Amino acid sequence: MTDQYEFTMLSAALADGSAHIPCSFEVFARRLPNGRRYGVVAGTARFLEALTRFRFGPAEIETLAAFLPTKTLEWLESYSFGGDVDGYREGELYFPGSPVLSVHGTFAECVVLETLALSILNHDSAIASAAARMANSAGTRPLIEMGSRRTHEEAAVAASRAAYIAGFTATSNLEAVRRHGVPGAGTSAHAFTLLYTDADGPNEKAAFAAQVRNLGVGTTLLVDTYDITAGVANAVEVAGTGLGGVRIDSGDLGVLARQVRRQLDDLGAKETKIVVSGDLDEYAIAALRAEPVDSYGVGTSLVTGSGAPTAGMVYKLVTVDGRPVAKRSSHKESRGGAKAAIRTTRATGTAVEEIVYPVGSTPVIEDGLDAIDLCRPLVRGGVQEPSLPGLDAARELLAQRLVSLPWEGLKLSQGEPALSTRFVEAPA
Amino acid sequence: MTDQYEFTMLSAALADGSAHIPCSFEVFARRLPNGRRYGVVAGTARFLEALTRFRFGPAEIETLAAFLPTKTLEWLESYSFGGDVDGYREGELYFPGSPVLSVHGTFAECVVLETLALSILNHDSAIASAAARMANSAGTRPLIEMGSRRTHEEAAVAASRAAYIAGFTATSNLEAVRRHGVPGAGTSAHAFTLLYTDADGPNEKAAFAAQVRNLGVGTTLLVDTYDITAGVANAVEVAGTGLGGVRIDSGDLGVLARQVRRQLDDLGAKETKIVVSGDLDEYAIAALRAEPVDSYGVGTSLVTGSGAPTAGMVYKLVTVDGRPVAKRSSHKESRGGAKAAIRTTRATGTAVEEIVYPVGSTPVIEDGLDAIDLCRPLVRGGVQEPSLPGLDAARELLAQRLVSLPWEGLKLSQGEPALSTRFVEAPA
Repeated sequence: MTDQYEFTMLSAALADGSAHIPCSFEVFARRLPNGRRYGVVAGTARFLEALTRFRFGPAEIETLAAFLPTKTLEWLESYSFGGDVDGYREGELYFPGSPVLSVHGTFAECVVLETLALSILNHDSAIASAAARMANSAGTRPLIEMGSRRTHEEAAVAASRAAYIAGFTATSNLEAVRRHGVPGAGTSAHAFTLLYTDADGPNEKAAFAAQVRNLGVGTTLLVDTYDITAGVANAVEVAGTGLGGVRIDSGDLGVLARQVRRQLDDLGAKETKIVVSGDLDEYAIAALRAEPVDSYGVGTSLVTGSGAPTAGMVYKLVTVDGRPVAKRSSHKESRGGAKAAIRTTRATGTAVEEIVYPVGSTPVIEDGLDAIDLCRPLVRGGVQEPSLPGLDAARELLAQRLVSLPWEGLKLSQGEPALSTRFVEAPA
Repeated sequence: MTDQYEFTMLSAALADGSAHIPCSFEVFARRLPNGRRYGVVAGTARFLEALTRFRFGPAEIETLAAFLPTKTLEWLESYSFGGDVDGYREGELYFPGSPVLSVHGTFAECVVLETLALSILNHDSAIASAAARMANSAGTRPLIEMGSRRTHEEAAVAASRAAYIAGFTATSNLEAVRRHGVPGAGTSAHAFTLLYTDADGPNEKAAFAAQVRNLGVGTTLLVDTYDITAGVANAVEVAGTGLGGVRIDSGDLGVLARQVRRQLDDLGAKETKIVVSGDLDEYAIAALRAEPVDSYGVGTSLVTGSGAPTAGMVYKLVTVDGRPVAKRSSHKESRGGAKAAIRTTRATGTAVEEIVYPVGSTPVIEDGLDAIDLCRPLVRGGVQEPSLPGLDAARELLAQRLVSLPWEGLKLSQGEPALSTRFVEAPA
């Protein structure tokens, strides 16, 4: 899971001893995608877990032996990260230039982590950032993540996890249930209704009866395989007015939700919930706010980051032997030096500004403002810090942080970041 | 890696015996994304490999036991797919409605494969479809895949594989080299140049010298860390006029390529290649056709499918006990019945039409046209067919197929599919 150039750089640096110089690398995003107002950090815990497993066994060494000298192979065989990592917590907001993750150690031990750190943080943060906008659009209505089939099979599991951090209620992905403890959800697809087709043609009632027998009347029946009005009538006829829910997966969801709500109420199924799904994104969810929808199933747009499938974070060398370094060529300038960050807030809790400052200095905080430390110790001397916050803590943190944003920050429209980032220069 | 509803459907169908009815499911795309002219099938071999590993061990059963009855758990413990699979070969083109994969077996053994089949085919085909447009824009110039850091760590490996099928020359992802035999490539990043910073400031020549000592003068030096003109001068001074290549990763790549080519030629480094990278997509690659660029490095746009990160394929039940079935509700109509497909071609080799017809019938081919069978047997009775074509065969197949498209088919602009799909009705 590593790019070849990390090893060719490593080899060259091992050859002349530069590999052992102490360095700091920093992960940050130059901008937020598509005029978004905030980003959401996710993937940090997955990165830390991957870091403990980041070793080079015989199979990997064999591949690398094709182009690397013995000295490099020996170094890799005994590789184990022994440095420090600091970073934003999962569920924390980030803005352009926020030092989301900082990795400190020798050049050699840090340089080989570029692809691993970026793959995980770019993917998971992209999903969480899109998911938070959806959750915000949904308000108190539950959101079910059901996008596994629209993305790589392993990415799907990570996407479920990131969506849960961002406020989704449950996932259809059972490996995410097993691996990360995300609550599971799911009832049936059109295939199940179609299965109940015999010589006399489709028999929707038989399908509904089979599902209710198996899952109880609290289940959700998918009513749009044939005709929605007939489907709703069949569903209530089979399950009774105590039916848990009906799902609509196609058509104009607003119009259909109103029509189905009226029909359910007329049939006496006043407590039966309406679940909608089918090409929903944050805008479609927001457009359904006034409609009698009880929960949403979201697939494609969630796992593809709703137009921003990657967070665009980069991993840059910022100090060499204590000296700040930075690329200078056009358009992609970076700020050198190891950095930390605080976020100032008013007494009301509203966030004011992100302040990024050189590690070791103390940023000046305006009178009357409080400050939140954003960069937390994650790894010390190669050992993960004890009792790092888990998935539910990340979910709670984000919920708090979204409340702290100035209100323009929650707008779906394109605009400037909700908080500006101020960079404090290193003292001369 | 499976959605919960597949198991709840399975349980309900096992309870009343419907689970054992013979069924066919079909994978197809309703449309091509963003007005693309063709899609490229990729992932089939990965799906077949995953199918052989698709089992439910103690850890999975424990998760499922939370919501499934014993009967279902017992069935899953002994699960092993025993049906048939037919499908398009990897590297084959597809169009709206092409039956890319067909899975035949009992409802139970097929329904649980939905997420697995779709995750793999949707991801890999999305990448291959975007990559083919890039490869076509690049013409004979090599393309290096370097997008691992912009996508999920496992998706990155699959993306490298799909890009290779689509005509990319090499990948930076070493796990793709190890796992799939894709050729590897990569030299150095800005971090390596920055590492050579001492009390007197940056020392680009020292970095270049270290890289050349280690990788030889045939290596590619990254010349845009500080000043590109100085970088090129330093590179040739250190490596001599036999330097393999220089890489430019920022700025207006066309202008810079011309300027760097002139400088290299003036310095006598007439054979030194120019590699460009940095936010390239199929359009940017095409825009550089007339510039003195020797090869391209492509990252973000490749792994995110260049605006279409998923292929939008669906997995639909099409026959139950031999009877065609199809969802009827608005906008998402499907065609029932198990289907196969041929593509007709003129004597010149130019493709004419995609004909999708009911399995068991024989499509009528117009006089003077030839026909290619598109659906190949992949699995029979749960056993993979011997000697299925490998990665290089897929790459060659696609190269042939792209030549067979009517010339409008290779346009980058939005439009209609290059071939229309004709659906032959089942004989009455």
